[in-house]
Amino acid sequence: MKWVTAVKHGESFIGLVQEEQVVNVSELAKSKEVEFPRTLLEAIALGDEFMEKVESLISSNLAANHTYNLNEIQLKAPIPRPSKNVFCIGKNYRDHAIEMGSEADIPEDIMVFSKAPTSVIGHDEEIPSHSSITDQLDYEGELAIIIGKTGTSIKKEEAMDYIFGFTIINDITARDLQQKHKQFLLGKSLNGTCPMGPWIVHHSEIPNPENLSIVTKVNGEVRQNGNTSDFIFDIPTMLIELSKGMTLEAGDIIATGTPAGVGKGMKPPVFLKPRDVIEITIEGIGTLRNEIVE
Amino acid sequence: MKWVTAVKHGESFIGLVQEEQVVNVSELAKSKEVEFPRTLLEAIALGDEFMEKVESLISSNLAANHTYNLNEIQLKAPIPRPSKNVFCIGKNYRDHAIEMGSEADIPEDIMVFSKAPTSVIGHDEEIPSHSSITDQLDYEGELAIIIGKTGTSIKKEEAMDYIFGFTIINDITARDLQQKHKQFLLGKSLNGTCPMGPWIVHHSEIPNPENLSIVTKVNGEVRQNGNTSDFIFDIPTMLIELSKGMTLEAGDIIATGTPAGVGKGMKPPVFLKPRDVIEITIEGIGTLRNEIVE
Repeated sequence: MKWVTAVKHGESFIGLVQEEQVVNVSELAKSKEVEFPRTLLEAIALGDEFMEKVESLISSNLAANHTYNLNEIQLKAPIPRPSKNVFCIGKNYRDHAIEMGSEADIPEDIMVFSKAPTSVIGHDEEIPSHSSITDQLDYEGELAIIIGKTGTSIKKEEAMDYIFGFTIINDITARDLQQKHKQFLLGKSLNGTCPMGPWIVHHSEIPNPENLSIVTKVNGEVRQNGNTSDFIFDIPTMLIELSKGMTLEAGDIIATGTPAGVGKGMKPPVFLKPRDVIEITIEGIGTLRNEIVE
Repeated sequence: MKWVTAVKHGESFIGLVQEEQVVNVSELAKSKEVEFPRTLLEAIALGDEFMEKVESLISSNLAANHTYNLNEIQLKAPIPRPSKNVFCIGKNYRDHAIEMGSEADIPEDIMVFSKAPTSVIGHDEEIPSHSSITDQLDYEGELAIIIGKTGTSIKKEEAMDYIFGFTIINDITARDLQQKHKQFLLGKSLNGTCPMGPWIVHHSEIPNPENLSIVTKVNGEVRQNGNTSDFIFDIPTMLIELSKGMTLEAGDIIATGTPAGVGKGMKPPVFLKPRDVIEITIEGIGTLRNEIVE
């Protein structure tokens, strides 16, 4: 199952993507007078109850009346307003750590920073260039985990049970601000610098999230060509480390780090500029596309 | 005006503190059938509309019927669930920067990290020792700013207009995790490590927030004795730097950094242990008190 948050006729809804079509499940629920969560974030927190409700709704013969083509709707980020900052794992691919400095940059312990929720945008929404603030805007294609249930001190053997699904995040970074302010938050939180989507794919469709090809193109040119099998800290380790004494909640988002090939790693470095189009494709999920605007 | 979020008879309410008493404004509004925000976070976002509503409510002769003594209610953090991570300014007092390392640690540019909203607790709520995760739990007494209206690229001359009020935050830090994970988020976000309160004091009662004495005691012993006049980056600078390309929103919280005197700075370092009581007193606000529990 692929979940979207989208807009049709000015109204935001929860949609289920099937091939090139989207069922407006929010509207379907309303037409059948079924109580339904307002947002995908609330839906995820409902857990199995939500999944059962949807199964029942889409099997109805009214579903066809609430189905659109994907190109008839406007996608938002699947979780347009996370309820806290997006967690991000830093330097989680060996070759990327090296391109950002040297072998000494390969972390021995997991590194976690965050992006403010105000930075989130959806597929095909525009990324401001912030040219008055930074001249080193860079992309980072990343697999993102969506947490499905709340937990603290998560154990290795149960870690995967805490995952609702996966999406793609472009962890757009102002390299100059990232470096200047030491702690990464400011360089990672400019408005529009957390493109997310196009949808959340349910974990049942991604049996092995640690063997997914991840490709980032800028204006059609391949820049990053990695695989999540190269994670330094694997997914159970991320969940174990993050939830040690800190409660992870349903709907929390963890961007898992980026492979080598960012603009700062090129010789000489090449940064993003207005009209650049970044496309990140992750196997089993799809393609997240965004353009930089002046 | 001093605002609290508190609980009486199992129900959470917005309260206005007057001397040793609290008016339950939520209940008062209900009794007068006046529409009223559910949380102080929502209230702050309403701006002047909220203030006018309250003025009118408390002038009613019914107010006395909804007034308790402070010791009859249970305080929560004034904003028990922020809508994003709490922003924190790192090393914003010269002497603290030096005690954490050396003169080289005095930042040239503002340093911003965050605490997850799950770490927030109120006055007199217990701080878990997290003894299985850290043996270097430390206090940091800080003035916190509550943003009153949403803005981006805030200008110096209008910066103070964006402030709703002030409270106290104890930026409890696991020093070992802070150091080990390089980026501060994990060492700063353990559950219960963001005590906040006891209330938010409206900015009109604090004409000069940059000249406030700030004293932290552990078990009655003075450990930090500073003044906000020693900020390296003053309040307008914080708002200017944070809002550069990143929208600050009503209800956002900025912990402004801690003066010298943390446990890690002592020779030898002394960390917190169960039954330690930390009291942070800021001039014009009050005292935030919390105990460490096993």
